[in-house]
Amino acid sequence: MTAQLQLIPLDGLPRVEPGDDLARLVAAALGEGALALEEGDVLVVAQKVVSKAEGRYARLAEVRVGDEATALAARAEKDPRLVQLILDESREVLRVRPGVIIVEHRNGYVHANAGIDRSNIDSDPEDPRVLLLPVDPDASARRLRASLAALTGVSVQVIINDSFGRAWRNGTVGVAIGCAGLEPLRNQVGEQDLFGNVLEVTEPAVADELAAAASLVMGQAAEGCPVVLVRGAQLAGGAGGSAALLRERGQDLFR
Amino acid sequence: MTAQLQLIPLDGLPRVEPGDDLARLVAAALGEGALALEEGDVLVVAQKVVSKAEGRYARLAEVRVGDEATALAARAEKDPRLVQLILDESREVLRVRPGVIIVEHRNGYVHANAGIDRSNIDSDPEDPRVLLLPVDPDASARRLRASLAALTGVSVQVIINDSFGRAWRNGTVGVAIGCAGLEPLRNQVGEQDLFGNVLEVTEPAVADELAAAASLVMGQAAEGCPVVLVRGAQLAGGAGGSAALLRERGQDLFR
Repeated sequence: MTAQLQLIPLDGLPRVEPGDDLARLVAAALGEGALALEEGDVLVVAQKVVSKAEGRYARLAEVRVGDEATALAARAEKDPRLVQLILDESREVLRVRPGVIIVEHRNGYVHANAGIDRSNIDSDPEDPRVLLLPVDPDASARRLRASLAALTGVSVQVIINDSFGRAWRNGTVGVAIGCAGLEPLRNQVGEQDLFGNVLEVTEPAVADELAAAASLVMGQAAEGCPVVLVRGAQLAGGAGGSAALLRERGQDLFR
Repeated sequence: MTAQLQLIPLDGLPRVEPGDDLARLVAAALGEGALALEEGDVLVVAQKVVSKAEGRYARLAEVRVGDEATALAARAEKDPRLVQLILDESREVLRVRPGVIIVEHRNGYVHANAGIDRSNIDSDPEDPRVLLLPVDPDASARRLRASLAALTGVSVQVIINDSFGRAWRNGTVGVAIGCAGLEPLRNQVGEQDLFGNVLEVTEPAVADELAAAASLVMGQAAEGCPVVLVRGAQLAGGAGGSAALLRERGQDLFR
């Protein structure tokens, strides 16, 4: 029988605060759940807790709004301070409509509002703050992998996921914005087509598929569950991070 | 502990031929695997076997190529007969470049080459044929659900998945092109933002997230495994099919 895939939500993670050692928190939660990491396991961690541990908050009161943000905020019908932060986090604005600004994030993802999160943040209404993406999610994933290896003796693969909207389809899906220890694309051996030509290589984006699966599990918990242990994924090892998931600008047909 | 998600690839499905009763084949394979369906289970079935059972083959020798297909084939550097079939299956051509034609399929999906598949088909090189998507994957999913309920006494939820490329990101991911018995989007309760405004509702595309997870499992098997049993998904019931996943043309920013 082919191996099955298991996704186990990790209970018992405390509220994460800036400066927290996420690897220690995860290791403790694993221990409480009587779960021991195994070779080949993948740990999928929600961007939100990585950002919180890294203290990626921005206080809106401290934002200095420029002219571009003022104009864009009017078009998007958003708070100009938030729009300034979105611009600061982005390379390019691709589309604008009321309520949404689609950008290329400075890390290369195309998504809404530079991934800046205002929900589920313990924020003072008198002094609101928002949560930015980690500075370098691949580096965050590598650190978490290394720290967990030091704590547990097992080098798991790590994916940091976030929920992105998509072109053409409604709803959000989990995608991998950072990874460590794995190859995010599975390279299929080139097949021949009916005419003997080698087909264009099909590459399943396995890191995104796992990120999506974990997102589903994270969303099931009443209060959300930011860490999911995945067993049986059989992902190939790799050191390249998540960059392979990003299509080069010149190759993209939908800019 | 929050319930875990299990994805169990179904071994023992024979090669599917036109006219086969897919529900009977699945029920038999479940029996061989000593697996009994349970309430809340989701069965994810690869488009390819649904199309095969429905006999959705087209012989290239029978295709009459029109002027539009001839011109488009030159731009796309594809077989004009295949391009004619792509046009026949599509409402609109969105983008063309050598090797790929991005269309809106007659069922509303935006994807490459109208999902027409030339790989893994037992085809005579002297008389090549290709495999089209099911005529109505939601109807296929509903039939499979009803037949399995009749055979097993359990009404599982059914997703028919296919692998789609995406804007902005490399690699393909599994998506739901048909579903039965489930709500493809999970409607989150509207949260309030920092300023007391209700946030735009976030709707995870849970059917796509599960389709992606199943696609990962399907691709792990050496010869592929077209049916995956999912346990623990906790998807809400619903009768609307997959249409809710398709963004209305006027709402889409990337046409």
